[in-house]
Amino acid sequence: MSFQNPVFIPGPTNMPEELRKAVDMPTLDHRSPLFAAILHPALDGVKAVLKSQTAEVFVFPGTGTGGWETAISNTLSAGDAVLAARNGMFSHRWIDLCQRHGLDVQVIEAGWGAGLPADRYEEILAADTGHRIKAVLATHNETATGVVSDIAAIRRAMDAAGHPALLLVDGVSSIGSMDFRMDDWGVDIAVTGSQKGFMLPAGLAIVAFSPRAMQAVEGATLHRTYFDIRDMARGYAAGGYPYTPAVGLLNGLKMATGMLLDEGLDNVFARHHRIAEGVRRAVHAWGLELCADSPDLWSDTVSAIRMPEGVDANRFVAHAVERYGVAFGTGLGELAGKVFRIGHLGRMTDVMALSGIATAEMVMADLGMDIALGSGVAAAQAHYRLDPATTTRKEAA
Amino acid sequence: MSFQNPVFIPGPTNMPEELRKAVDMPTLDHRSPLFAAILHPALDGVKAVLKSQTAEVFVFPGTGTGGWETAISNTLSAGDAVLAARNGMFSHRWIDLCQRHGLDVQVIEAGWGAGLPADRYEEILAADTGHRIKAVLATHNETATGVVSDIAAIRRAMDAAGHPALLLVDGVSSIGSMDFRMDDWGVDIAVTGSQKGFMLPAGLAIVAFSPRAMQAVEGATLHRTYFDIRDMARGYAAGGYPYTPAVGLLNGLKMATGMLLDEGLDNVFARHHRIAEGVRRAVHAWGLELCADSPDLWSDTVSAIRMPEGVDANRFVAHAVERYGVAFGTGLGELAGKVFRIGHLGRMTDVMALSGIATAEMVMADLGMDIALGSGVAAAQAHYRLDPATTTRKEAA
Amino acid sequence: MSFQNPVFIPGPTNMPEELRKAVDMPTLDHRSPLFAAILHPALDGVKAVLKSQTAEVFVFPGTGTGGWETAISNTLSAGDAVLAARNGMFSHRWIDLCQRHGLDVQVIEAGWGAGLPADRYEEILAADTGHRIKAVLATHNETATGVVSDIAAIRRAMDAAGHPALLLVDGVSSIGSMDFRMDDWGVDIAVTGSQKGFMLPAGLAIVAFSPRAMQAVEGATLHRTYFDIRDMARGYAAGGYPYTPAVGLLNGLKMATGMLLDEGLDNVFARHHRIAEGVRRAVHAWGLELCADSPDLWSDTVSAIRMPEGVDANRFVAHAVERYGVAFGTGLGELAGKVFRIGHLGRMTDVMALSGIATAEMVMADLGMDIALGSGVAAAQAHYRLDPATTTRKEAA
Amino acid sequence: MSFQNPVFIPGPTNMPEELRKAVDMPTLDHRSPLFAAILHPALDGVKAVLKSQTAEVFVFPGTGTGGWETAISNTLSAGDAVLAARNGMFSHRWIDLCQRHGLDVQVIEAGWGAGLPADRYEEILAADTGHRIKAVLATHNETATGVVSDIAAIRRAMDAAGHPALLLVDGVSSIGSMDFRMDDWGVDIAVTGSQKGFMLPAGLAIVAFSPRAMQAVEGATLHRTYFDIRDMARGYAAGGYPYTPAVGLLNGLKMATGMLLDEGLDNVFARHHRIAEGVRRAVHAWGLELCADSPDLWSDTVSAIRMPEGVDANRFVAHAVERYGVAFGTGLGELAGKVFRIGHLGRMTDVMALSGIATAEMVMADLGMDIALGSGVAAAQAHYRLDPATTTRKEAA
Repeated sequence: MSFQNPVFIPGPTNMPEELRKAVDMPTLDHRSPLFAAILHPALDGVKAVLKSQTAEVFVFPGTGTGGWETAISNTLSAGDAVLAARNGMFSHRWIDLCQRHGLDVQVIEAGWGAGLPADRYEEILAADTGHRIKAVLATHNETATGVVSDIAAIRRAMDAAGHPALLLVDGVSSIGSMDFRMDDWGVDIAVTGSQKGFMLPAGLAIVAFSPRAMQAVEGATLHRTYFDIRDMARGYAAGGYPYTPAVGLLNGLKMATGMLLDEGLDNVFARHHRIAEGVRRAVHAWGLELCADSPDLWSDTVSAIRMPEGVDANRFVAHAVERYGVAFGTGLGELAGKVFRIGHLGRMTDVMALSGIATAEMVMADLGMDIALGSGVAAAQAHYRLDPATTTRKEAA
Repeated sequence: MSFQNPVFIPGPTNMPEELRKAVDMPTLDHRSPLFAAILHPALDGVKAVLKSQTAEVFVFPGTGTGGWETAISNTLSAGDAVLAARNGMFSHRWIDLCQRHGLDVQVIEAGWGAGLPADRYEEILAADTGHRIKAVLATHNETATGVVSDIAAIRRAMDAAGHPALLLVDGVSSIGSMDFRMDDWGVDIAVTGSQKGFMLPAGLAIVAFSPRAMQAVEGATLHRTYFDIRDMARGYAAGGYPYTPAVGLLNGLKMATGMLLDEGLDNVFARHHRIAEGVRRAVHAWGLELCADSPDLWSDTVSAIRMPEGVDANRFVAHAVERYGVAFGTGLGELAGKVFRIGHLGRMTDVMALSGIATAEMVMADLGMDIALGSGVAAAQAHYRLDPATTTRKEAA
Repeated sequence: MSFQNPVFIPGPTNMPEELRKAVDMPTLDHRSPLFAAILHPALDGVKAVLKSQTAEVFVFPGTGTGGWETAISNTLSAGDAVLAARNGMFSHRWIDLCQRHGLDVQVIEAGWGAGLPADRYEEILAADTGHRIKAVLATHNETATGVVSDIAAIRRAMDAAGHPALLLVDGVSSIGSMDFRMDDWGVDIAVTGSQKGFMLPAGLAIVAFSPRAMQAVEGATLHRTYFDIRDMARGYAAGGYPYTPAVGLLNGLKMATGMLLDEGLDNVFARHHRIAEGVRRAVHAWGLELCADSPDLWSDTVSAIRMPEGVDANRFVAHAVERYGVAFGTGLGELAGKVFRIGHLGRMTDVMALSGIATAEMVMADLGMDIALGSGVAAAQAHYRLDPATTTRKEAA
Repeated sequence: MSFQNPVFIPGPTNMPEELRKAVDMPTLDHRSPLFAAILHPALDGVKAVLKSQTAEVFVFPGTGTGGWETAISNTLSAGDAVLAARNGMFSHRWIDLCQRHGLDVQVIEAGWGAGLPADRYEEILAADTGHRIKAVLATHNETATGVVSDIAAIRRAMDAAGHPALLLVDGVSSIGSMDFRMDDWGVDIAVTGSQKGFMLPAGLAIVAFSPRAMQAVEGATLHRTYFDIRDMARGYAAGGYPYTPAVGLLNGLKMATGMLLDEGLDNVFARHHRIAEGVRRAVHAWGLELCADSPDLWSDTVSAIRMPEGVDANRFVAHAVERYGVAFGTGLGELAGKVFRIGHLGRMTDVMALSGIATAEMVMADLGMDIALGSGVAAAQAHYRLDPATTTRKEAA
């Protein structure tokens, strides 16, 4: 790859200049009041991005995986039952993490390309009359398949079943790029990281706990220290941190949330939708299909594109980087070799997206696929030329 | 414009990450030996890029305009005659500068789109039997028109006329990007800047003097102090500078010349030709014409593209920046409103070039031009897909 | 504090320019081969700094606390006994972490200012004939008290007792700054972070496992996923990572280890000793005492200085930052208000150290202490003026 | 030298982090409206720093020497008489520049250590009843000797003589650090650069023209193009530049002037005075003398310190950089080997100044001088400890 070209992996994203500069700080004494002046606006900014009035936000040096561990280890105890659906690599990994922590995971097997089946969640929760299930896991945006699921529907399913379990949501590749309504959707824990919608380098696990989730913390007996939100909360209350914080990244988070809120969250989401829609039109112009089972599942942060039979998607990704210096995402797990992914999250522009689409066309042609050069570009251009005021609203499927 | 997108102005160019970091230095004592360890490799690097064994290189805090002034004020005296051709805005400005310094400029009016007419140079020089003409000015690459001229032909013209004038060449937008042979072509003074082929911020005037030019310095009576190469030469000999140097830019120049020489100058030139050729194929696919009168004049660093009658090129440039955040070059002087320019110099990639071409298509469509979206992109893609080993050689015109 | 002044906290350290630039990278695809070209040299570099031929090094997005958790959760099971001594805040916190993970910690209470009592370790281990103790914890350098302990002595104690427990060592504030001999000392797990001897921002937990520690991993049943070295090892073997790595910090680690090894570890350690010795001479010139019980315990990375009765060390630290913009370390835990700390690790110079000493003098005078201005500075200057070739050898205590 | 240590050369100064980041910009199209949004606030900021309501400010890619050339070439004609005093290397160089441009310079020889002799100016101007003298040159702060002169007195001398010459002032090492009142003092042209009080890298020549100076421009016949303010003025009026501007430096200038004005100019000057006074107290504690003839001439930006007979000041400077990695200024011209200079301008702190003073003491001791280590430090500490509200007013001499 070339640092001259944009990256099209679904995170870490291309980083805006000002965020790189915010992260690249000289050493600041994290026990001085200057630190609190970075930390608290960053936490407040995340809360606003989550559209929550009541959540408590915690930020750890870590990644989204650490965020998953934070979510379960602070609220659950060994042997607790949790309910989760598997519809791709990242939902799979969270399930795996739960199992390795001694939880009893009831797994709904959804297809890799399917959304989270709210009806199945409801059925199982309704049947759990003893409320053995303590937490429901939901992956808002399955990064491996480019599928966004309806979290509000999961909440409705839980409510319909009258089930008191906590709702834990992986929003790693959605938060900050697609609409996420922590309070409205009754999300109890939201998990994300620094390197997706917040456009920063990897290195922060970001989690938000609802008041109900906070209540569950004291009773939870899974072992935790590094990811213990109680130490974090005590530290924050004193303007500090339980260990050495990643000050530069927190400073970046303060600025990143400020940028998103200044632009207006709805504008940010509309922008992502616009860019994504252009990519999708290119895909369809090529005669290819998205991995997502139906248009209502199309993610605005990442598109997973199925390769035709006989074409190895891994070769696509390898050729793109070697020949044109451009990084796309590979297929993961069940989809390895079958899809390649175009990440279109963060502060991407139409113009950057077009360069990725144009590159993909050259790669496909090089691999012998029957692709008209310029065809996907033209379809995307036609979309990007439209008045942003009209194209940034989510179309009916 | 958006800092997320590449720029397509014909300099300053997009800057490679490592050069930005080389320029962004902490304060270094320019009277310490550390400075000489930056200065001398930078000077040697420039000399190698110029393919000269004998030139003395001088670098001033300034720009190419300062380089022009350095060239004339160090070698000429008030009232001296010089010969120059005007074929665009930058050759025009050098002529103007000479006149304002009291020189008697004999101007050959070539068209804006024409190359330098070696035959006319020869005629005039042959007629100047008294050798009143002290210097011949030649603009290697006319940035305003995208025309590269044959400097070797100018030298042959001078030799054919048996004329002893100095040959002063503006290589601002060619040196480091297109072949420049100071010794082979008998160039007496070469002028360039930091912000083109050297991929740095603006701020350095770079000039190289042949031994013959050095001999002319003592007799020259035009006033000069800031741009006096004698002070510079004395400073360099002592590892220093006659005033405060722009240390960071010099450090960048040291690294930039290293990058060019490590890549291999022929590879650098071939890369520029490849990228440029893709742009030109796009232009032709759009049914448009380059400003350059004939293919042998096509510049590999900048393409000036004629707009059809009735379309204002300034609107093109303004719309590109406002609607898509992409900077192209405007037409200058006689060409204002008639051409827009795509700069494709510096470390541009195929992929970046494609994003500029795609943007240009959207802009032209927005302005109501009859352009098939994707058509130029497809033509460029077809070129960029070809084996670099075969496409990087300059085709016969 | 002012970013113009050096910091004197015992980590994060002042960062060398080149390391900041190494960390501040554009987005790199961590699934591309470029990542392995960063990761593996970084891991190898750490191994060399640890003076180990056989260790496996793992680097997590995290901090030293995460490193502690990695050490125990990968090798121990709930209910396992571990032996540890408490001689300051950081040894205390590791003990606390073990307890919260369900381990049965046998604590040797050493004074805050004492070294690790090898004789007490030996006694207890010799008495543990049933080998219930699975791990011995040792804090090489207690950052809270400025005490360096003799890890080789702990190993000798274990060997004398014929005890098979693993030796887990916290080298967070020693590794890369003071001699650390993983293989010679029979260390089974070494723990450190990015923000001390490696001079980087906080954000990496760095751990090294001996072959014996690796063998213990499979039998360990403490829950772990984020910090599971098995996933890490599998990732590394494939040139990758089990989740999104902190690429910039890893790139910094690659460069930092290169810098240390290029300078020569013995030179690095001697440099730290020189700087530290100057600070200690200043302390003694002031008539103050170090927290460390005896000279053989003096740390070369941090000095904890006891305030006279009646002077609040917290006021010292607060006044230094408010009035002079300089950050020193506060006393922690039992030492809060009783000591202030001067961190002198990382790439500090004599000159920087002198500015910290001079600041401390002004602060003490401002607080009404009977201090001769310039007295500590003069003592340190006298030391720093000595021939580095003679002063950088560790003096007999 | 070491980039870890501050520099103590009298410019370029240590650069504040935020200014380095402001300068290190991605490529911006200097023909787009974004450029005007940088340029005009920068020009306005300079004007405010100069305390002028009426001046026109011009900024060239260049240095202070280019500023001198701008001043004379835009207002004078060959053969014009100018009056100047020589009291150090920089006043000498400006005189030399005038002579090389064909001006008839009447030189008042003041001692190297003296201030500008207003009485001699008055005498000569009064005698010039024919007003042959077109310009009076005055060096506000002679960087070579650490002497600040009274520009208001020069203006009074001109007025007393009823002389209409222009007053051209070199404020390179004063403006932005010491009080400068362009309008009050009737300064016609003020010259400075980016690398002193503006704390930026070298690379900008900054000049301000009074309305009277502007009137002189049209009649001036000295050759100029690069430094012609008429082209500059035309460019500015159109939001542009006559050639490629140094955009990053201009962006830095915008921020630097903002920082100075936000702090309050009087606070900035008081801060420089405080720091300088501490350095001077150290010098006197060492038993050494400043080069300046009397206390009223002491510069708050640079102190030139006379070495005792028999000690080579060049050895001092060389030893400081080689042994301690610290850069001081050498003696220049007549003072070579006789003085060393401590620059204390820009955003230096007490703490940084103390490290320079401490270093100087070690160097002097190393050279065999009879210096009590810590003595100068103690004297400076005593000053820096005083309440800033009382010490920042300029004491009576």
